[in-house]
Amino acid sequence: MELTDEFKRIGIRLRQEGLIGAVFGNLSVRGDDGFFITRAGSYLDDPGSLVIVPFSGPMPPEASSEFRLHREVYRKTPHHAIVHAHPPHAVAISLVRDEIIPRDSEGEMFCPSIRVVEGRPGSDEMAANVADALSLSGAVIVRGHGTFAGAKTLDEAYSLTSSVEHSCRVLFLLHSWEDRRL
Amino acid sequence: MELTDEFKRIGIRLRQEGLIGAVFGNLSVRGDDGFFITRAGSYLDDPGSLVIVPFSGPMPPEASSEFRLHREVYRKTPHHAIVHAHPPHAVAISLVRDEIIPRDSEGEMFCPSIRVVEGRPGSDEMAANVADALSLSGAVIVRGHGTFAGAKTLDEAYSLTSSVEHSCRVLFLLHSWEDRRL
Amino acid sequence: MELTDEFKRIGIRLRQEGLIGAVFGNLSVRGDDGFFITRAGSYLDDPGSLVIVPFSGPMPPEASSEFRLHREVYRKTPHHAIVHAHPPHAVAISLVRDEIIPRDSEGEMFCPSIRVVEGRPGSDEMAANVADALSLSGAVIVRGHGTFAGAKTLDEAYSLTSSVEHSCRVLFLLHSWEDRRL
Amino acid sequence: MELTDEFKRIGIRLRQEGLIGAVFGNLSVRGDDGFFITRAGSYLDDPGSLVIVPFSGPMPPEASSEFRLHREVYRKTPHHAIVHAHPPHAVAISLVRDEIIPRDSEGEMFCPSIRVVEGRPGSDEMAANVADALSLSGAVIVRGHGTFAGAKTLDEAYSLTSSVEHSCRVLFLLHSWEDRRL
Repeated sequence: MELTDEFKRIGIRLRQEGLIGAVFGNLSVRGDDGFFITRAGSYLDDPGSLVIVPFSGPMPPEASSEFRLHREVYRKTPHHAIVHAHPPHAVAISLVRDEIIPRDSEGEMFCPSIRVVEGRPGSDEMAANVADALSLSGAVIVRGHGTFAGAKTLDEAYSLTSSVEHSCRVLFLLHSWEDRRL
Repeated sequence: MELTDEFKRIGIRLRQEGLIGAVFGNLSVRGDDGFFITRAGSYLDDPGSLVIVPFSGPMPPEASSEFRLHREVYRKTPHHAIVHAHPPHAVAISLVRDEIIPRDSEGEMFCPSIRVVEGRPGSDEMAANVADALSLSGAVIVRGHGTFAGAKTLDEAYSLTSSVEHSCRVLFLLHSWEDRRL
Repeated sequence: MELTDEFKRIGIRLRQEGLIGAVFGNLSVRGDDGFFITRAGSYLDDPGSLVIVPFSGPMPPEASSEFRLHREVYRKTPHHAIVHAHPPHAVAISLVRDEIIPRDSEGEMFCPSIRVVEGRPGSDEMAANVADALSLSGAVIVRGHGTFAGAKTLDEAYSLTSSVEHSCRVLFLLHSWEDRRL
Repeated sequence: MELTDEFKRIGIRLRQEGLIGAVFGNLSVRGDDGFFITRAGSYLDDPGSLVIVPFSGPMPPEASSEFRLHREVYRKTPHHAIVHAHPPHAVAISLVRDEIIPRDSEGEMFCPSIRVVEGRPGSDEMAANVADALSLSGAVIVRGHGTFAGAKTLDEAYSLTSSVEHSCRVLFLLHSWEDRRL
């Protein structure tokens, strides 16, 4: 099935760039009556069969534990694809900032302001906060947890994720350099 | 043989994530009368044939030099698989802390407290300390040496290892950021 | 076509070394009446078909958005190949320095002084500044944006890019170490 | 030819671990009347045909520019294989220390003291200094340049290189952490 290959292709790129580790992170794509999402506990670079989750009603038990969040994003925003990753610099900076302002030119162009929102992984609160943020922007960070990016395609949502981590890494490098000169 | 492929698959992931370098680290899985372990000096991503070590009695000389530790863990704990790696941030933080408290949400969920124990690599002391720690928790760090994770499967033990290193890396980033603001 | 394989081979290396992420960066090679460049939004490690851009006259719409810069470099300099990447340490250091003086021996040999120039991505200003810099040197950094390297071949331009990032990374490590001793 | 495959296998590992970038670094193995070395400007993970260099007499022009150093090591020491790499933490620390004392347990076991020596790349001075150091130890760092490791096999010399970089990386992490507590 072609969609599975798409998921796997993006999962491999996320892995190669160090944006996810082990079984962490998940991916989804909007369908007609629901959305396709990676299985709970699957490796994104080797996701196996996908799970179809309806926009309302009971959940298939094998879907990723973040299904609530993905559903809420598809209900509240026009995004067609979602990438959730655990990039280390984005996770770390979210613990010390409420909003991230990139200083590299890609960040300024694609995500000039990245919001940090609260919420326990898997909770309705996190789902609502992320869906709100993604109705205004392509990317958001859940404090201490990871990035969520929404876009027209998985490729675009992955590129946003890569750009957010690049911006956060540059901010850490700048912070370490500039502080020394004081 | 299927088990060898399992070991190799996990070894490749450990290497891709930078959790091991060169011939460092080792893997084992519990069997009926003993356990299967990687050979001394083998590359975990290309382990070749495994060595069977009985739960008691003489050791095959080609087994990994950490066999004592693996045997002790299988004797004292219910774990079915062990992953030993040398992740740089976990090794470094173990030299300055006796207990590690993750601040990222995965760390809080899977390893809310990571103990640091003492012991010379290969020694009975290290074997006892690691087995004690792994009877209470899924992961432990031997000071200056590396991580040991125990779980039901190699996949789970590898995921714990990845999560511990992610938590330690986030702690280093936070430490460098926060200190500057003082 | 052989040239496409060349581009792909270099794109894979840039990616493996972490010098580019996602769809960022672009590559070109001089031809007889114009130059070959990667498509807008393509992955450099899987670039698909290349675009031919004439040295003057209208631009094919599918060419990389940085085409103005590549054209200007081919007009003003003798370089035969250009590599544009987004290496994190080079991008970060360009935000705090106007000129970078490597302290590692490869940097001293291949790029003893790396200039930092200004310019909005895609602008004529950036194109002019980069072309001026590459008429004097093999590599330049656009502030907050990324590296541009020009050389006889893609292999050489990639090696320069790798060397610049290595030098910048070493400078960050040195800066963090030395400052502590004060 | 089998030896070429050996070189390539080690080159791929060096590349995957980030111990070399682009065309930097070189490898050699002792033969009967001379030694086999990678070509000047070759990628170690795709080295192509090797060059045979006699222990005395004229040099084949296509040999790596570091041939003097390799020859001197084979003359003065019993090593059978040499790995030269450019690991970023080892290069950086060599600019601020004359001797490196690892604090991780692998470093303490395999390279309890790593000397830093002087010399311009390609010079007789560097060749003599490295050969002297490798007659006492398995690994040495040329200041600002890179590591040289000598051993019975390429696998062992690569493992030493990996261990040295791991130790230097841990030292940088420790230095950044500990200094903050003052």
